[in-house]
Amino acid sequence: MIRFVGLGLSLEQLAIGAIFRLLKCRKVYIDIYTNLWFPSVEELARILKEHGIDVVMACREDLEGYGISKIVKEASESDVCIATAGDPMIATTHIAIAVEAARNGVELEIFPSTSILNTAISLSCLQMYRFGKTVTVVRPKNGVVYEYPIHVIKINRSLGLHTLILLEIDIEKDYFMTPKDAINILLDTQRLLGERVLGEDDIVVILKALGSPKGEIKVRTIKEVLKEYFDKTVYTLIIPAKNLHPVEEDCLKIIEKLKIHHTMDMDIFKNIVKFMAI
Amino acid sequence: MIRFVGLGLSLEQLAIGAIFRLLKCRKVYIDIYTNLWFPSVEELARILKEHGIDVVMACREDLEGYGISKIVKEASESDVCIATAGDPMIATTHIAIAVEAARNGVELEIFPSTSILNTAISLSCLQMYRFGKTVTVVRPKNGVVYEYPIHVIKINRSLGLHTLILLEIDIEKDYFMTPKDAINILLDTQRLLGERVLGEDDIVVILKALGSPKGEIKVRTIKEVLKEYFDKTVYTLIIPAKNLHPVEEDCLKIIEKLKIHHTMDMDIFKNIVKFMAI
Repeated sequence: MIRFVGLGLSLEQLAIGAIFRLLKCRKVYIDIYTNLWFPSVEELARILKEHGIDVVMACREDLEGYGISKIVKEASESDVCIATAGDPMIATTHIAIAVEAARNGVELEIFPSTSILNTAISLSCLQMYRFGKTVTVVRPKNGVVYEYPIHVIKINRSLGLHTLILLEIDIEKDYFMTPKDAINILLDTQRLLGERVLGEDDIVVILKALGSPKGEIKVRTIKEVLKEYFDKTVYTLIIPAKNLHPVEEDCLKIIEKLKIHHTMDMDIFKNIVKFMAI
Repeated sequence: MIRFVGLGLSLEQLAIGAIFRLLKCRKVYIDIYTNLWFPSVEELARILKEHGIDVVMACREDLEGYGISKIVKEASESDVCIATAGDPMIATTHIAIAVEAARNGVELEIFPSTSILNTAISLSCLQMYRFGKTVTVVRPKNGVVYEYPIHVIKINRSLGLHTLILLEIDIEKDYFMTPKDAINILLDTQRLLGERVLGEDDIVVILKALGSPKGEIKVRTIKEVLKEYFDKTVYTLIIPAKNLHPVEEDCLKIIEKLKIHHTMDMDIFKNIVKFMAI
């Protein structure tokens, strides 16, 4: 059996059902390349190992391409978990493993968890019903600018919708796109295309390192984003619709004051695991 | 301080940070009217009460309208939690409390949790990037048919996007819209409007009572939905885009076989709480 287990964005967001499943697996692959998890996947791995679980810190080649058939074979013999920060099926590529497993008659389970999708929407306090398609901003590759994000924002804005924007991260290469990089890429693209989707006074909601002690929410204009300094960590942006609902307007005025959660002590987790493993 | 605490959809989805917060509050309002939580909010309340917490099973009037100023006053004196099935800010109206609290200088915390939004997308294994705006189907009220959902599906389909559809529930009146009711309402609306957004061979993904032992995923044509019998519980639908990505096609063939999680024993929770409360 393969169990896809979402870890949420942090220890605090870890669900008791997720812990339960991790402890049931003989082997746990922890995806270490699609997202960060706070305080750290290494500490999580250490605690699972103490309970006799075979833990693999899985990089891209372990969970994609040739790696897939190896895992499917292992899962046909005993329970294998694939643990991912956030949700195992949202903004990751693990669906290919699920399809291959099903083709081979291996039993499958998906345990969904809090992901950046619902966490960002929830903490922005903008109305969930007013979000359009989500998009990721990536760096130009070999001189080719990926025009798609600005099109998505344009369509969403024309429909009066907010846009959730994920920023490229490449954990294996230690690259984290900052809000400033992302906005510059979007502004460059719209210049190239002769569009004017974003203006310098438009508002951006910046969600920084959600689930970590560095977690922060800021509301800035595009002009301000371009002048600000940003730490190296994971960011998510929301470009709200041009017209906000009065409740949303009130909300954007208060969200910077929100207390957002900080990392719990790993010892608490260690003890819960000890208890659940009995 | 007011802490908005998401409970996820079930005990298994309950995050350890959520338990931690509930135990810190002197008074916990459990929202019992916006969504179901499995196995039951009553059992959750009972366990919290055993730990000396003042628990209110909150209906609409406790958390809306006049109820808001009462809570804000209480929260200015001690820690108050508002616990909601799913996420506290997604598809609920608790934002009004947050805004009022901030106006009165009361400290605020939002603890996001797994909601139907990410759970349904994750379990459908359709690509998160291909979801457009979400919509809720409600019954015609006083003879007035709410046309909006069919417009949303039409726009999403014209953009090649999937639509997540929430169905009206009214827990206080014990009303749960079934997939058949919802499809009939959508078909009636498109007939009235002279539209043809949905055809009888179009596919619908039906997500039933996610997080409960009755949890189930089915892929049906609209024609089949109209002939099927549905239990009384909470359902969510996805109307996929007309054109699917090959991975999505493969996925829709296997998702009915997915093992989706069943309710854990409440005793495990009881013991975790006992441990965390020490």
